Amino acid sequence: MALANRSLVTIDDLSNGEIEALFSLADEMSDSMNEQFGVCHGKVMASLFFEPSTRTRLSFETAMNRLGGRVISAVDVKATSLAKGESIADMARVVGSYADIIVIRHPWEGAAKVVADYAGVPVINAGDGGHEHPTQTLCDLYTIKKERQTIKGLKIALWGDLKYGRATHSLTYALARFGATILLRPGPRLELPAHVIRKLTTEYGGELIRSEALDQAVKGGLFPLDAIYITPSSPHQLAMMPDVSIQVELKTGVDALYVTRLQTERISAKAKRQGLKEHYPVVDKKLLKGKEFKRTLVMHPLPRIDELAYEVDADPRSMYFKQAERGVPIRMALIAFLLGAKEISVPKEGDYFILKIDYPVYRREFGVRCSNPKCVTTQKGEIKYIKPEFKIVNTKPLTLRCAYCEHEIHPQYIASSEWHDGTLDNKKYHSADSHWTRKIKPENLIIFDSQTEAEAHGFKPSHYARVGH
Amino acid sequence: MALANRSLVTIDDLSNGEIEALFSLADEMSDSMNEQFGVCHGKVMASLFFEPSTRTRLSFETAMNRLGGRVISAVDVKATSLAKGESIADMARVVGSYADIIVIRHPWEGAAKVVADYAGVPVINAGDGGHEHPTQTLCDLYTIKKERQTIKGLKIALWGDLKYGRATHSLTYALARFGATILLRPGPRLELPAHVIRKLTTEYGGELIRSEALDQAVKGGLFPLDAIYITPSSPHQLAMMPDVSIQVELKTGVDALYVTRLQTERISAKAKRQGLKEHYPVVDKKLLKGKEFKRTLVMHPLPRIDELAYEVDADPRSMYFKQAERGVPIRMALIAFLLGAKEISVPKEGDYFILKIDYPVYRREFGVRCSNPKCVTTQKGEIKYIKPEFKIVNTKPLTLRCAYCEHEIHPQYIASSEWHDGTLDNKKYHSADSHWTRKIKPENLIIFDSQTEAEAHGFKPSHYARVGH
Amino acid sequence: MALANRSLVTIDDLSNGEIEALFSLADEMSDSMNEQFGVCHGKVMASLFFEPSTRTRLSFETAMNRLGGRVISAVDVKATSLAKGESIADMARVVGSYADIIVIRHPWEGAAKVVADYAGVPVINAGDGGHEHPTQTLCDLYTIKKERQTIKGLKIALWGDLKYGRATHSLTYALARFGATILLRPGPRLELPAHVIRKLTTEYGGELIRSEALDQAVKGGLFPLDAIYITPSSPHQLAMMPDVSIQVELKTGVDALYVTRLQTERISAKAKRQGLKEHYPVVDKKLLKGKEFKRTLVMHPLPRIDELAYEVDADPRSMYFKQAERGVPIRMALIAFLLGAKEISVPKEGDYFILKIDYPVYRREFGVRCSNPKCVTTQKGEIKYIKPEFKIVNTKPLTLRCAYCEHEIHPQYIASSEWHDGTLDNKKYHSADSHWTRKIKPENLIIFDSQTEAEAHGFKPSHYARVGH
Repeated sequence: MALANRSLVTIDDLSNGEIEALFSLADEMSDSMNEQFGVCHGKVMASLFFEPSTRTRLSFETAMNRLGGRVISAVDVKATSLAKGESIADMARVVGSYADIIVIRHPWEGAAKVVADYAGVPVINAGDGGHEHPTQTLCDLYTIKKERQTIKGLKIALWGDLKYGRATHSLTYALARFGATILLRPGPRLELPAHVIRKLTTEYGGELIRSEALDQAVKGGLFPLDAIYITPSSPHQLAMMPDVSIQVELKTGVDALYVTRLQTERISAKAKRQGLKEHYPVVDKKLLKGKEFKRTLVMHPLPRIDELAYEVDADPRSMYFKQAERGVPIRMALIAFLLGAKEISVPKEGDYFILKIDYPVYRREFGVRCSNPKCVTTQKGEIKYIKPEFKIVNTKPLTLRCAYCEHEIHPQYIASSEWHDGTLDNKKYHSADSHWTRKIKPENLIIFDSQTEAEAHGFKPSHYARVGH
Repeated sequence: MALANRSLVTIDDLSNGEIEALFSLADEMSDSMNEQFGVCHGKVMASLFFEPSTRTRLSFETAMNRLGGRVISAVDVKATSLAKGESIADMARVVGSYADIIVIRHPWEGAAKVVADYAGVPVINAGDGGHEHPTQTLCDLYTIKKERQTIKGLKIALWGDLKYGRATHSLTYALARFGATILLRPGPRLELPAHVIRKLTTEYGGELIRSEALDQAVKGGLFPLDAIYITPSSPHQLAMMPDVSIQVELKTGVDALYVTRLQTERISAKAKRQGLKEHYPVVDKKLLKGKEFKRTLVMHPLPRIDELAYEVDADPRSMYFKQAERGVPIRMALIAFLLGAKEISVPKEGDYFILKIDYPVYRREFGVRCSNPKCVTTQKGEIKYIKPEFKIVNTKPLTLRCAYCEHEIHPQYIASSEWHDGTLDNKKYHSADSHWTRKIKPENLIIFDSQTEAEAHGFKPSHYARVGH
Repeated sequence: MALANRSLVTIDDLSNGEIEALFSLADEMSDSMNEQFGVCHGKVMASLFFEPSTRTRLSFETAMNRLGGRVISAVDVKATSLAKGESIADMARVVGSYADIIVIRHPWEGAAKVVADYAGVPVINAGDGGHEHPTQTLCDLYTIKKERQTIKGLKIALWGDLKYGRATHSLTYALARFGATILLRPGPRLELPAHVIRKLTTEYGGELIRSEALDQAVKGGLFPLDAIYITPSSPHQLAMMPDVSIQVELKTGVDALYVTRLQTERISAKAKRQGLKEHYPVVDKKLLKGKEFKRTLVMHPLPRIDELAYEVDADPRSMYFKQAERGVPIRMALIAFLLGAKEISVPKEGDYFILKIDYPVYRREFGVRCSNPKCVTTQKGEIKYIKPEFKIVNTKPLTLRCAYCEHEIHPQYIASSEWHDGTLDNKKYHSADSHWTRKIKPENLIIFDSQTEAEAHGFKPSHYARVGH
């Protein structure tokens, strides 16, 4: 019953054991689809989709309907009171007082967390900007599991837009946690964001091997350029795969090729889109003739545009329509779990491939703010009630991870809240590069974006206030 | 069973007794929410929202779903056949032949009445332009009743945009009818419209006391400027509150503060919006420290923008999320009543605070038309089938109230339909200011907007055809 | 059970007997509307409307709800993944893996066929561009049948926009098949398209009589100008009506007048719309005073604009609101049939008024393409997977009918695929006007739009390569 009344905002809100339990229930749902009609009888799900969607929304709504529950929907931000300037938090509180569970898709990163914080009922993130899309990841993992029986030790290649693809971000975390090896084949300028890489190499114990090391393999035609390789770093005693050489690995073949489309709608500046389409890598029959793809599952979260040729559809390796189809039983299982409508027995093993790191939390009304323009905390209508929150993931250089959108920032000035205990002279600020960053206790840290801001709050520069000091 | 098969277009479609009966059923719905699933089994509700909405639409749809009924929705005027130029009446007839009950929101004032006139099934007005929003009023009253046990004798302050806020208009009528005293605190240029004031001071027996009379109280800091005070006028033998002095009243405190946002979407001309936002009154912690607000319920129909600070949310006096939450049981009760799915026993007392005035009705194919550009009767596609209808609410000066949008107009010329009984010389028109306005029997009155129009219908000016004669 | 698991893309997907069986079930549904709630229990219908609709969508959704099934909806192409560039086929496969039945409306002609080809579940065409709208036709026929007991031998006049009105196209086929006589009264430049006329005069054995023959009748005021008359041609031994003179026919009166609005949304070029509205024929009280309309059913698929006056609404001959109302039982019957939820016993007679013509099929990856810019096969995102398909409906001149949108094209060059069997010199192309068009076996035909295209595929001009040879 552990899942009841919880929310699913990021894929890490579920333990590996809970994911395995969901898969078992999804099997059951799938096997007896027509007998689930009483499971959520009398329950109401709010389906709030403030970005275009067919697949995800319709599969959630199908899932709830097949469980016998009812659905209320809002599919267009222009047709809701958000168009009148209502905050996400107010909407969440109100809808949470109507429905028993909320599914939310929103263009702002971190929006799902805000809904979960305020709704008072379980909330499922159906995609929040470029941040995460955990139920897509559940469909992806479930498909791999069904086809290969395990995820551990598999080699999964991620292909295309790894920068803006939220489905990909959620998937990398889950793959790492289940002990898969991840091969990366981004389009030009579409590499996995730094904060995702950091998470993979710290929390999940991955080891990054740049493509330089792969040169030989690449020249041998085994796999396209720019591949990046993640393998568990030994200090963590976590082994995502046995310690063999990359070349050998590649020769044994790729287990799954996860293709994604260019997320054009997230690249607003025309200049930034320049050339992305033209040089986007395409998966077609010809590519799949490579012997490393002989037994490869060809996956895609859909919709596809041109990056995955139609000629592949008839190939038995193509899995993308199965992925979509499995969205219904997986989401039925998830909804039933979160509503406490089905018992869940979680396997004991737990999160074997994840490090529990308790980063210090930074949370103040004033001072540093997230610099991601798509973060929910930086929106005009939301800023008035959301208290910024960060995890201090590094002190040298000082690195803060936004608790909402998970982007990382590198603020340049710090001070201590303990100044008032001493003389007024103590109210000084320092460069974040100085030793004070580690000397001041995390709970006393005050962090500023700029000198102007620090001085606006009455702080004066210390000897250590020059950046780079 | 009196409510079955009726419509709710304005709050006055329900008697006080019926409203009390609804509240009792809402209590029952609220107490046993999960046992109502059979009440509307097999019934279909059409939810037609041609203006942005979250709260109202989703709470209606939740209500019908929790009653076990089904919902069909149209949420965007662009996606319906209205986009092809279909009239509201045609749409109403068609949807009325599909569904058992219709909920309608529409930007044109009086649109809900047109739907109710043509649908052939019960219709609920979920907001028609700036006109009325009776179910919001039910939620508001229900909340006051739950928190204070009575409405009679309470002092309710209305705050903000009293001009364009339809929820406020419906609420003032209901408050007056239940014997509450209404204090008005409009934003600049956002006073209650003249036709609402007239209705309050005639049908509902209110007495208007302008803020001049309140000067002393205001200077004493008890309540902000520009307050207007309505109290029952003695001739009607209706007492909305005991006859005490205003200053004393204010000192005893305000029972509820009903805050509304600026209805920007109803103020099309940019010039008209000038300065409204900047000088809009704000309710925050500081204001609520005033001793007249010590026990005040802070209410808001939501969505809010900046007029009600987030810092108030945690205050036990804040009622706005409760108002929203109560929308579900109230709407469940209303739907069940109108569909005849629940018995209703109406308390005997009836409409004790309302005067039944049978104004003469003016209804002709030609002649005067409503001058409100947002009235449904003035829309190009609707004008071809709607016969204008007015109540003659005054004859000196001649004042007509549109039966659709309730705006008042002051036409300048009149004639008698009895001219044909005499000689042709009798086919004359007169100034509406002349004694003829009262001399001609209401059923014979012909009313014109202009001399041109009167003459186009073959009338000639009488000696009394000059305006102001 | 013959209907289960089939799709309804064009009205010809149903035999006359099946249509009669649907009408019987619709009667049953209508008589006991409240007892059908278990018929589709546990089934899910996807309602995909990518063009504005009230009537059709809401009546389908009402129908499924009254059968006890569930509905998932997408009403705006901008809010679905089609907005991200997804193909119709991909969407169909995905939604087909969620829902048990799909209802689709789409602006592209032939789109419903694509959905049916890929969905894997029954698909109902709720209107595909200007092509067909078969369920509207079922409502129309059902209304005629209910009011006149038969369709055979009736005279039905079609009025208004016969060019762009898809409902009209589907209706003409059905009327012809049931043995009705069709009178045409198009607005200026809004005549029935050539391909519809051809279908009526070939497959359905109709005979076209131009208005010249009607001059005398017209001058006698019996029926407005430009009427076209279809009667069965004797060689087919099909009699849509007894062989009497037209004048006599008209004098006996028109059984139904089927009015349609100008389909403005399908006439993109402003120049093309010029004058259409101004000279559009109007049906009003005055027209209906004509003695040929004494017993006429006045029908309209709705929405109406100005072509059918409101003053007719109260006339007992007006049928349009009944047509709309009957949409619910008809669609309940159809859904129940296609889902196999109701047994169906089809009368034996079959398609007595339709000729089964097995036209040769032309289907190649390259060569000629449909020239209709609204055809689904000519859309950028769809062209990459749809193989063009045509019926060769005539060889002199060579006439191909697109299997998707049914528009006709007249390609100018042909060749034979058998060239490779002979010497290279045989790889020649010819004018489609030459005798080669009939000489080459249909299965070997290669058809080109232009000489350039033929030559691009390595063909050289033969002596017969000049057009008009």
